[in-house]
Amino acid sequence: MSGWVVIAGLGPGAEAMITPEATAAIDAATDVVGYIPYVRRISPRAGLTLHESDNRVELERAAHALEMASEGRRVVVVSSGDPGVFAMASAVFEAVEAGPPPWRDLDIRVLPGITAMLAASAAAGAPLGHDFCCINLSDNLKPWALIEKRLRLAAAADFAMAFYNPRSKSRPEGFAKALAILRECCAPERVIIFARAVSTSEQAVRVTALAEATPEMADMRTMVIVGSSLTRVIAREGAPIVYTPRSVEA
Amino acid sequence: MSGWVVIAGLGPGAEAMITPEATAAIDAATDVVGYIPYVRRISPRAGLTLHESDNRVELERAAHALEMASEGRRVVVVSSGDPGVFAMASAVFEAVEAGPPPWRDLDIRVLPGITAMLAASAAAGAPLGHDFCCINLSDNLKPWALIEKRLRLAAAADFAMAFYNPRSKSRPEGFAKALAILRECCAPERVIIFARAVSTSEQAVRVTALAEATPEMADMRTMVIVGSSLTRVIAREGAPIVYTPRSVEA
Repeated sequence: MSGWVVIAGLGPGAEAMITPEATAAIDAATDVVGYIPYVRRISPRAGLTLHESDNRVELERAAHALEMASEGRRVVVVSSGDPGVFAMASAVFEAVEAGPPPWRDLDIRVLPGITAMLAASAAAGAPLGHDFCCINLSDNLKPWALIEKRLRLAAAADFAMAFYNPRSKSRPEGFAKALAILRECCAPERVIIFARAVSTSEQAVRVTALAEATPEMADMRTMVIVGSSLTRVIAREGAPIVYTPRSVEA
Repeated sequence: MSGWVVIAGLGPGAEAMITPEATAAIDAATDVVGYIPYVRRISPRAGLTLHESDNRVELERAAHALEMASEGRRVVVVSSGDPGVFAMASAVFEAVEAGPPPWRDLDIRVLPGITAMLAASAAAGAPLGHDFCCINLSDNLKPWALIEKRLRLAAAADFAMAFYNPRSKSRPEGFAKALAILRECCAPERVIIFARAVSTSEQAVRVTALAEATPEMADMRTMVIVGSSLTRVIAREGAPIVYTPRSVEA
């Protein structure tokens, strides 16, 4: 049997958000590779080898998956969320491009998943219901100046904004700087959502105004969504509903 | 039993991309409402009433769902893709805000789905693997000047861009104007992907350069993705792989 690589998204955490096609790929695999907490979401079974690796070794993990597929194995690379959004798909294709030519002709497929911003948006209402952008706030792999430029242009465009990796342990100051930039560009009442561990038993969604937001409201498990200038909050007895209307008046 | 409204995303077309939680909600429903082609994706069964409605009556459909839930019915509003991305969730919350106060305290949940840009990105490789934005090119509900402004600022930010509704029958000229703006702002070799009917039997993905793109390459079933300046194409025997690397050099 010829080998393949499937890069599959496991969604934000809940089993009920994993697509049937991702489940089917895992059921057909001989090997699953990925970052430790994601591989631990896969049930062991006879005939399946689980390969856990640490964070920040994405290229080595990708090359390992491609090597195994070259040898005829059926390999699933697991990501949380969607593999194409700040996850493993780009790392696999970087490894393909840098690797031996036969890797290009391997059977490689990406299976989309529920990325964190969609789950966070759904938990809060529909803050991404109009035009928006999606920015990784980590400056591990890009200069901070580019993040700052994109924040200012996104505010000028009046996009809603979804932020991945708002605050890492190693660089906690980045999110404080991002909030300061947003306060220069947006009104103090601009809606901001902190959605932590969405779809898990620890889910916590906090809705506040930009003026009231503090860096400590985000951690590594938090998705931050900033509304556009038109984003609205519907107050009610339970958690408020946040949504961005479909229309913009001329 | 008390009523509820679930706004569920059915993904881009393939049954295997519908999340188990969306399927479970449909299985528990007494009523499903939605645009005709989406409701036709639901299997009829005893105890379930299917309510099909036409396009452009989103607010009436939302109000109908909320009314039925007020009367104790269990209602699923179906969207294609993700209900929070240019789909029914914002329409339901607009109806809640404009409607009678008791609607605010109804049990209303949004279940995320695989939105078209994630499926299109996966079919092409990983073009959305770095910062990106997402713009609805239809000017039905917003002025064209705002679309133009957002396109120019997104190009200045060097975002990859995902375009929903690139070309409608009633307003075919919008996408030609968008291409002209992008040609002013981006190099001629900028990668552009036309992903039609992704995940269905009619799926067709075309990868070309901005200089070669024509308005006729998109129709109402096409998702258009424009790469950032760093997006790469890996040529190979089969369809090329398009991806955006994770890193930007300082």
